[in-house]
Amino acid sequence: MQSDTDTISSATQFSRTEHDSMGEIQVPQNRYWGAQTERSRNNFKIGPLASMPSEIIEAFGFLKKAAAFANHDLEVLSEDKRDLISQVCDEIISGELSDEFPLVIWQTGSGTQSNMNANEVISNRIHVLQGNELGKGKLFVHPNDDVNKSQSSNDTFPTAMHIAAYKILIDVTIPGIEKLRDTLRVKSEDFMDIIKIGRTHLMDATPLTLGQEISGYVSQLDHGLKALRHTLDHLSELALGGTAVGTGMNTTEGYDVLVAKYIADFTGLPFRTADNKYEALSAHDAIVETHGALKQIAVSLMHIASNIRMLASGPRCGIGELHLPENEPGSSIMPGKVNPTQNEALTMVAAQVMGNDVAITFAGSNGQFQLNVFKPVMAANFLQSARLIGDACQSFNEHCALGIEPNYEGIKKHLETSLMLVTALNPHIGYDNSAKVAKSAMAGNITLREAAVRLGMLTDAQFDEWVRPEDMIGAIKS
Amino acid sequence: MQSDTDTISSATQFSRTEHDSMGEIQVPQNRYWGAQTERSRNNFKIGPLASMPSEIIEAFGFLKKAAAFANHDLEVLSEDKRDLISQVCDEIISGELSDEFPLVIWQTGSGTQSNMNANEVISNRIHVLQGNELGKGKLFVHPNDDVNKSQSSNDTFPTAMHIAAYKILIDVTIPGIEKLRDTLRVKSEDFMDIIKIGRTHLMDATPLTLGQEISGYVSQLDHGLKALRHTLDHLSELALGGTAVGTGMNTTEGYDVLVAKYIADFTGLPFRTADNKYEALSAHDAIVETHGALKQIAVSLMHIASNIRMLASGPRCGIGELHLPENEPGSSIMPGKVNPTQNEALTMVAAQVMGNDVAITFAGSNGQFQLNVFKPVMAANFLQSARLIGDACQSFNEHCALGIEPNYEGIKKHLETSLMLVTALNPHIGYDNSAKVAKSAMAGNITLREAAVRLGMLTDAQFDEWVRPEDMIGAIKS
Amino acid sequence: MQSDTDTISSATQFSRTEHDSMGEIQVPQNRYWGAQTERSRNNFKIGPLASMPSEIIEAFGFLKKAAAFANHDLEVLSEDKRDLISQVCDEIISGELSDEFPLVIWQTGSGTQSNMNANEVISNRIHVLQGNELGKGKLFVHPNDDVNKSQSSNDTFPTAMHIAAYKILIDVTIPGIEKLRDTLRVKSEDFMDIIKIGRTHLMDATPLTLGQEISGYVSQLDHGLKALRHTLDHLSELALGGTAVGTGMNTTEGYDVLVAKYIADFTGLPFRTADNKYEALSAHDAIVETHGALKQIAVSLMHIASNIRMLASGPRCGIGELHLPENEPGSSIMPGKVNPTQNEALTMVAAQVMGNDVAITFAGSNGQFQLNVFKPVMAANFLQSARLIGDACQSFNEHCALGIEPNYEGIKKHLETSLMLVTALNPHIGYDNSAKVAKSAMAGNITLREAAVRLGMLTDAQFDEWVRPEDMIGAIKS
Amino acid sequence: MQSDTDTISSATQFSRTEHDSMGEIQVPQNRYWGAQTERSRNNFKIGPLASMPSEIIEAFGFLKKAAAFANHDLEVLSEDKRDLISQVCDEIISGELSDEFPLVIWQTGSGTQSNMNANEVISNRIHVLQGNELGKGKLFVHPNDDVNKSQSSNDTFPTAMHIAAYKILIDVTIPGIEKLRDTLRVKSEDFMDIIKIGRTHLMDATPLTLGQEISGYVSQLDHGLKALRHTLDHLSELALGGTAVGTGMNTTEGYDVLVAKYIADFTGLPFRTADNKYEALSAHDAIVETHGALKQIAVSLMHIASNIRMLASGPRCGIGELHLPENEPGSSIMPGKVNPTQNEALTMVAAQVMGNDVAITFAGSNGQFQLNVFKPVMAANFLQSARLIGDACQSFNEHCALGIEPNYEGIKKHLETSLMLVTALNPHIGYDNSAKVAKSAMAGNITLREAAVRLGMLTDAQFDEWVRPEDMIGAIKS
Repeated sequence: MQSDTDTISSATQFSRTEHDSMGEIQVPQNRYWGAQTERSRNNFKIGPLASMPSEIIEAFGFLKKAAAFANHDLEVLSEDKRDLISQVCDEIISGELSDEFPLVIWQTGSGTQSNMNANEVISNRIHVLQGNELGKGKLFVHPNDDVNKSQSSNDTFPTAMHIAAYKILIDVTIPGIEKLRDTLRVKSEDFMDIIKIGRTHLMDATPLTLGQEISGYVSQLDHGLKALRHTLDHLSELALGGTAVGTGMNTTEGYDVLVAKYIADFTGLPFRTADNKYEALSAHDAIVETHGALKQIAVSLMHIASNIRMLASGPRCGIGELHLPENEPGSSIMPGKVNPTQNEALTMVAAQVMGNDVAITFAGSNGQFQLNVFKPVMAANFLQSARLIGDACQSFNEHCALGIEPNYEGIKKHLETSLMLVTALNPHIGYDNSAKVAKSAMAGNITLREAAVRLGMLTDAQFDEWVRPEDMIGAIKS
Repeated sequence: MQSDTDTISSATQFSRTEHDSMGEIQVPQNRYWGAQTERSRNNFKIGPLASMPSEIIEAFGFLKKAAAFANHDLEVLSEDKRDLISQVCDEIISGELSDEFPLVIWQTGSGTQSNMNANEVISNRIHVLQGNELGKGKLFVHPNDDVNKSQSSNDTFPTAMHIAAYKILIDVTIPGIEKLRDTLRVKSEDFMDIIKIGRTHLMDATPLTLGQEISGYVSQLDHGLKALRHTLDHLSELALGGTAVGTGMNTTEGYDVLVAKYIADFTGLPFRTADNKYEALSAHDAIVETHGALKQIAVSLMHIASNIRMLASGPRCGIGELHLPENEPGSSIMPGKVNPTQNEALTMVAAQVMGNDVAITFAGSNGQFQLNVFKPVMAANFLQSARLIGDACQSFNEHCALGIEPNYEGIKKHLETSLMLVTALNPHIGYDNSAKVAKSAMAGNITLREAAVRLGMLTDAQFDEWVRPEDMIGAIKS
Repeated sequence: MQSDTDTISSATQFSRTEHDSMGEIQVPQNRYWGAQTERSRNNFKIGPLASMPSEIIEAFGFLKKAAAFANHDLEVLSEDKRDLISQVCDEIISGELSDEFPLVIWQTGSGTQSNMNANEVISNRIHVLQGNELGKGKLFVHPNDDVNKSQSSNDTFPTAMHIAAYKILIDVTIPGIEKLRDTLRVKSEDFMDIIKIGRTHLMDATPLTLGQEISGYVSQLDHGLKALRHTLDHLSELALGGTAVGTGMNTTEGYDVLVAKYIADFTGLPFRTADNKYEALSAHDAIVETHGALKQIAVSLMHIASNIRMLASGPRCGIGELHLPENEPGSSIMPGKVNPTQNEALTMVAAQVMGNDVAITFAGSNGQFQLNVFKPVMAANFLQSARLIGDACQSFNEHCALGIEPNYEGIKKHLETSLMLVTALNPHIGYDNSAKVAKSAMAGNITLREAAVRLGMLTDAQFDEWVRPEDMIGAIKS
Repeated sequence: MQSDTDTISSATQFSRTEHDSMGEIQVPQNRYWGAQTERSRNNFKIGPLASMPSEIIEAFGFLKKAAAFANHDLEVLSEDKRDLISQVCDEIISGELSDEFPLVIWQTGSGTQSNMNANEVISNRIHVLQGNELGKGKLFVHPNDDVNKSQSSNDTFPTAMHIAAYKILIDVTIPGIEKLRDTLRVKSEDFMDIIKIGRTHLMDATPLTLGQEISGYVSQLDHGLKALRHTLDHLSELALGGTAVGTGMNTTEGYDVLVAKYIADFTGLPFRTADNKYEALSAHDAIVETHGALKQIAVSLMHIASNIRMLASGPRCGIGELHLPENEPGSSIMPGKVNPTQNEALTMVAAQVMGNDVAITFAGSNGQFQLNVFKPVMAANFLQSARLIGDACQSFNEHCALGIEPNYEGIKKHLETSLMLVTALNPHIGYDNSAKVAKSAMAGNITLREAAVRLGMLTDAQFDEWVRPEDMIGAIKS
């Protein structure tokens, strides 16, 4: 979100000359990237430096390694080249080479130069590993002919998107949501017998238990996880093998299936070649689909976090039926003030995801002919949403949900004063008389019991017998 | 929102033959519309019948009348034709001919057939007014050559959009918002001295007055109205005179300025010819801009209606600091339940406007070459938002805002029990001691006064002297 | 989208007196609705009259009938009452009583008065069917005690939302999408051997076949349908049986399962009682989830319709590779102009659905405590999207897709002039020489063949042998 | 967008003990921040580290300095404290202390700990400047009592939002847009006499000039800039002086006006104290309003960049009427391919801004009681949009717009072959005969001239005289 000064250039006093089909260009001496990366770095000074998500770069590591293996199996790449490429890909995956990827999201919409960035870094890093100096001598492994063999930016970048997206869901998003869901489930069970007043339209209503209330949140997250998992099959489809326009020109037969198998092996995730490569290059409906599920989960999280903070509002002048953990001093002016800060972080994340969904929707619908050129912005928004949801659920779970406790006093006070318990009198004194009791209690600012007895409609004993919140919470536990 | 059976066709057993450049077509015998309208009616059976907003049709009445006057002044249309066209346009404006406009929003994105619908109806209605039978004899006023003279769908439809949009803002939207703003201002003044607890992060904070709280809503609406008015200048620009691609081909010099003047005269609104006709046909940024202001107002209304209902929540188990008018029985089960229904309608309207803003944003950004072909969907969403905001503000004002009253008891109870009044002790016993008082009161579930006295930090008299909410509300009235 | 004058009131000169717990109120003499409906009608004059979607009203017919059957089975409703209620519900389902539902979307957010509207109409209609006069005599079937038995607005309205939503998807949306998908599949197969130039970044690229290109659209719709079907299980869950706050207070054991079974029987759709009633009342994530799939389909449709119209652009100055059916005269000025009007309608629908998704997202995330009070706006947006997609796909299919034909001449011209066929020379003369050929052809405005031969890189015969687009389209058919 | 490992902690082997009202906590030895910052850093591990926008931190520099000056003027802060605070604030503004602000966006929604971060850093930095060791000895300038004097997080953070927002608009956004606007204006003037075919509905239409076409883009940006400037007045209102709930408790009279004056002086921007402090804390409609204008500009930029790339599509198989600068090799497979990469970056930015607008809309509408707790997410999205638009316009201007040239050949070819020039024959041979000529030309794949002469409707000489595109472009230059 911040725009630094260009520290890379300023720190680099020496440069070497690289060239591509457009001619020569100066590249920082000590960097593995080459001419095409440098052109993009110079031509797109938009937003913070090096904003291309690290997950995409890691995914390129898996992808380039898999391509090298498939190409070798299909006898179009030698074993030593395969192994060298593989070695550097492992460095990329580990994050060791993260400084070698200086490009931004806001470049060409196909991510072409990020693909070339990977090609150039792998090629030059091998050159150095072989004991050579950057920019001197012939490259043993050529960025285009070897590293990019059987590939095009048009099929590598969307493949990297799916790898990165699937991986972050499995590594970060789903575990975060599940942790929160599990905690809420335990809370729901623990609090299943704590009877409290219900509220509809923000107005007092008939009672339920605190555990029942929380069970609704658990059910939302269960449904959200199910919805998210439903989308994974589409996301498991990889564009790789489609090359420039989806026809797979310049690939060997069987390559697309094989390379997907290697990616599945290396990532441990069930990737497979896409059903239709033309879709896979020109549209990114799988990203739209899965982010739709993330957005649904954001809707649930907004609901859950908002309601928990309303229930915990107070301590004296709010609803005051829950205690949340106290994590930070809430105010420099007001002593003892504690705020629902984790809820606030989570609801801010939810708002962000809702916005990201629109960016992805818009971007996803604007593919033209054989290519959608909104790939990096779709990837960046998706990965941000997936990480934020995972991290924020984890944070909310650890620093808030685990410590939620009932405020028994507040719960009891509301349950006792509520007028809606009058509903229990309907079978005994009739709806109309019940209404009179409720209105009389309201008008006189007295309890239902007092009102009913004063009106001569029942005795204290009858009130005790008839108005039993525990009989009003139904058989529906969750 | 509903899809009826096609009552027009089924009710029409007889038809006449009309033709256009594509050949013959059967049109319901008794309808003023002609071949092109009928083609569109048959080809676009999408959603409810006749969904093209009536405000657009009315706007075509103003527009066609103005064009006839301008064309006559520029000596390309005879006086009798002008007067006949004008006569039928007045009927259109009055709504008398509303059944003659059967087309839907989801037609061609230029609204071409709705323009032709107007041309055909005017021409045929004149034919009948002159004593002729529909479909028989030559039309004295030709739909294209006369009614559509110096016009193209491409400049008439966006002109109709601006006329309809501006007009509904002046007639419905702004008056609705102003009424609500005025009521809230009166309430703010009336309640300016009612001290109550403040809440930040939904947690108890230092006090303010109810009038101060409401003054924030007034300020929001004032700013919203100002923002809305800022957009009107762009909206006052009319595309008319640009004809097919913006060059004004087939128009007489001065026509664009003159026709805008007539539209201004007939509507009483300050329309003028667009600064740039190429923008006016290919982009609808004025609609985007003005709807952006409507969306801002929706944000304000969401805030206002949400907060008022939270303040009125209860009556026993919520915040309970406001009384709202009781308009409908709130529950068939729970006697005496009354719900903030006007707030709910208003917040639903706000959600709709936020959604409409995205539809308009998307549509507005997709113009291609000399034409944006998302005109009807932009018009429909804009007009829905403008009407809903106006109507809902009016409804909320009449059935809720005017009747808002403080719940003095609830306000007093919260003010007295709040621990945040402890802030007033800081200057006297120090922040640390104040914190001890607050925590002791919280832990012991007692009042600040009790806690402070028990801790020996002050006397009852000192408490009375030092803890005065009326001294904590600052000099900032609004 | 239009706001009529209040024709119902003005047409009704006579009224009868009805009353509810708030007192007396005048209701139009000849209408079946009662006091609560009338209050809502008077209090919510927002937007067009009677805007509550007809699908919701129909769903109330199914729901009230099912409740009557379940209540009878559980021995809390007599057989004759069950049969009378059932009889009127069938009239509601058939649409015969549509004039008796005058309420708008923008009412209470729980839809309480629409539930009461159904109760009142059923009760009064039975009264009349039994030979009585409206407003005179005691009602044999009581709106609350009988028609609404074991129900609350809070569980009926969300149940009606799910019934209406599921039903329209099955009746309108899915069939429309499937028809279009099937037509595109046939076109894809028919055109599978028509080789054409590919385009990436809107720039000329390597070739593919027209059938391959269209196969991508088919795959998008297949994936979209799959995504939509994945959501149906959540949508099949019904809130009914939760009553006021989800506990099922005032219902008989087993009622929730039984009433869902009856609804499933009457609609022929696999409804079941909700896993968790607390979720089902306070959140509408199922609506969010399913509309997310509709939004994904809108993204696909935007892509498909946009690309088809770009491919058909021209006829002389555009891409010109497809012929679309000519349905309406395109211009009153320019003879022979034909526009892609069905594409425009479909893309406008897509924009609307994207906007609706945001309205639903916003509304869905704002549930408070035991109730989400954005139900009608969610229902209305969902049903609009579902109908528009279904209708627009059907319309686009019938009036556009079925008639799509290749423009062989345009396709051939582009294929022959494209410079990107040079890619086929790489294996023969090398990348660098190929690049020289391409640049020379571009600079000299000549063909690749001419450039290659002039540069002495190959012979005419070699060009014929090596540059064969049919060898460049790969093994990937779709 | 990336999540790094926590380099700060791992790099810090030594720590010191700090404490706040919650007790002790370990803080990295060499860092200026204190206990409250550390708590937030530990409790909110959500997304990338230190994501709070640098512009907000800079704004805190201006704000704290201004507060120190105002407090001194009002005699509640000594001169030496003022000067020390001011000195460190200048360091913050210069960016020297950027490593001392480790907090993330996803913290408390009031930004409380970012306010405390500034207070702690200033206080500790002064301590060190005075020759002391961190964590040892008494602080001369207290973070709360001195640095935060007359302030609360609740009024400082929204003040920082307005300062940062206004500043980036003036420094980055507006200059970027203006540069692009100015370049397009020059291009529009340069190309004003280049006649080309117009296109509506993507179909050939009557001609206009290239300069006219581009003038529409200029007009859009002019209107956008005007709309943006209209919002600045609201944005110039500062919350500072409202303190905790808007009442200004704990401030000296006149402080709010004075501190705003100092901020205006230090930033050179026309800030003033907010009209209404209750609005300024509980709602951020000014951010919503201004971002609405940024969204409008994004709509314009999407339109402009999309159209320019369509006009430049080809080079052989697209529209091909513009040449764009060639900046990077477009393909590793296809020699000579050059892509409209700047357009792609700009349209991706536009999509992001549209998404951000929804996040801001949602966040802005959810304020509760005296505070909106979505402040950091609103700030982050706003600042991202503002920077991206400014940077991307600058990049697009430099690397694309400045180098746009007409493709005279392509323009000429289309103009000559277009059938829509037939419109010029209407006055001479009539609409019907013109239509026949157009259809005959289309059917025979010949020119209009050939068709007209063959049909015997006119002579070659007459064609030359009558069909003159230069007479069809109207008097409307722009």
